[in-house]
Amino acid sequence: MNNATDTHVTVIGLGLMGQALARALLKAGHSTTVWNRTAAKADPLVAEGARLAPTLGDALKASPLTIICLTDYPALHELLDANDIDLGGTTLVNLTSGDSSQAREAARWAAQRGARYLDGALMAVPPVIGTADALILHSGPESDFEAHRPTLEALGTLSYLGADHGLAALYDVAGLAMMWSVLNAWLQGTALLRTAGVDAATYAPFARQMAAGVAEWLPGYAEQIDKGSFPAEVSALEGDARSMAHLIEESERVGVNAELPKLFKAMADRSIAAGHGGEQYPVLIEEFLKPRED
Amino acid sequence: MNNATDTHVTVIGLGLMGQALARALLKAGHSTTVWNRTAAKADPLVAEGARLAPTLGDALKASPLTIICLTDYPALHELLDANDIDLGGTTLVNLTSGDSSQAREAARWAAQRGARYLDGALMAVPPVIGTADALILHSGPESDFEAHRPTLEALGTLSYLGADHGLAALYDVAGLAMMWSVLNAWLQGTALLRTAGVDAATYAPFARQMAAGVAEWLPGYAEQIDKGSFPAEVSALEGDARSMAHLIEESERVGVNAELPKLFKAMADRSIAAGHGGEQYPVLIEEFLKPRED
Repeated sequence: MNNATDTHVTVIGLGLMGQALARALLKAGHSTTVWNRTAAKADPLVAEGARLAPTLGDALKASPLTIICLTDYPALHELLDANDIDLGGTTLVNLTSGDSSQAREAARWAAQRGARYLDGALMAVPPVIGTADALILHSGPESDFEAHRPTLEALGTLSYLGADHGLAALYDVAGLAMMWSVLNAWLQGTALLRTAGVDAATYAPFARQMAAGVAEWLPGYAEQIDKGSFPAEVSALEGDARSMAHLIEESERVGVNAELPKLFKAMADRSIAAGHGGEQYPVLIEEFLKPRED
Repeated sequence: MNNATDTHVTVIGLGLMGQALARALLKAGHSTTVWNRTAAKADPLVAEGARLAPTLGDALKASPLTIICLTDYPALHELLDANDIDLGGTTLVNLTSGDSSQAREAARWAAQRGARYLDGALMAVPPVIGTADALILHSGPESDFEAHRPTLEALGTLSYLGADHGLAALYDVAGLAMMWSVLNAWLQGTALLRTAGVDAATYAPFARQMAAGVAEWLPGYAEQIDKGSFPAEVSALEGDARSMAHLIEESERVGVNAELPKLFKAMADRSIAAGHGGEQYPVLIEEFLKPRED
């Protein structure tokens, strides 16, 4: 075994993200082996001290830990399913974007090939990889995560989510839902305020404060969901729906798009129709748990 | 004039919110006169030291500053439009919920009656009124706001938005859009994670961190909007739309409602169809600025 400051690690897939991962490992002082289908992509990394493996099999044999970052899961299977590639005893950390079922399937596939497997999701763009701003989610066996945590920490801020390999993908998409929601709400507000001549820079600090403030409510509201009990301690859904109607009317009156508040109200109205008008907002979880054909 | 620690102030409208406002003023040591159409609602406040005015006209005459908190703007006009009510020289701070056009119209109406007028919006529920957690938005002439700021500060944390009387109402609805967006995104994520057996309390801190983190981007993104230039510094809308498709597919695969990400993608797709696929997310402001008939 190598010591924590110089561990052998392999990176497979040298797109922009893979290159950023390899570079962060090199900067942290790890002996880094790289491989890419188009070998030329390794040139800048080799100049920075990486070793280019001649074959994929060599790349996997070079290190106890291999980080994979490919276009998608089919690309991963196409590459690693070749029979002459030995995965026995290696640990794969797969940071390829995919969904929870692909992650779970890849974990089963890796187990059949004798490999240890962790799934991961990169909540970051390539330029921040290697800094504390790069949040990296991991799921799979905790012992495998802990064994490689010292090496993986070179990549960013790690978050271990649990043994279910699908968790990293699920948290990833949940995080995306939050990202677009905050951005779209900010755009809705920016558009509303523009009708009164307020520029985006003037409005943005208020939007930031609102988003951060409402975020503080979530742990408390989560308790209602876990208890399955939604007493209207702060407000009732019926009042919220009236206030949504007010947002729709104000948007339409000033000539701003109202699709977002209309969807909010449609979901609240369905919950009220189901008898939840006197309960608190988190009762809407029941609508979110229902698929809807449209 | 009275000193800052004992100013005469009148509160008209003693619903739950009006009562909370009057109570906060009393606690801050202000001589508080109250009036309500149903006088009995004043009883608890009178027990706490408030003076109940016998008529609405008396209530308005009792103080240089009158805070109004009624059900809606029509209720305000019905009450104050009576010809024998003298508004000359008084300052009205109207915290009644309404839209920006109602606020602007009320300002014109007050000016015709010789009153000074500030509009306001309460971003708080009654129990927090009188604490720093109660954010209260004000718009109207800055000199009027500054003249009464020492008294109004008893109610919560004040934010002065500008001379346009409609601003408090617009910021209010913009804040509501952010509130529901953060809550709905959290519900979407909570539903996704529940399919993997993760409870809401476990997921909530991640959602809180995401919301607060994305909120930090807004001031920078606002610069792009004010410049009207959207270079893809971090990512391009086309890639975002693919990632939205991924969120939709994952939601549908695990049996969770996908209406919210579908709306996000529909708006992004329209912007891409308009030629903005290579630009950064804030370019979507152009879609939010368009009303849509549906």
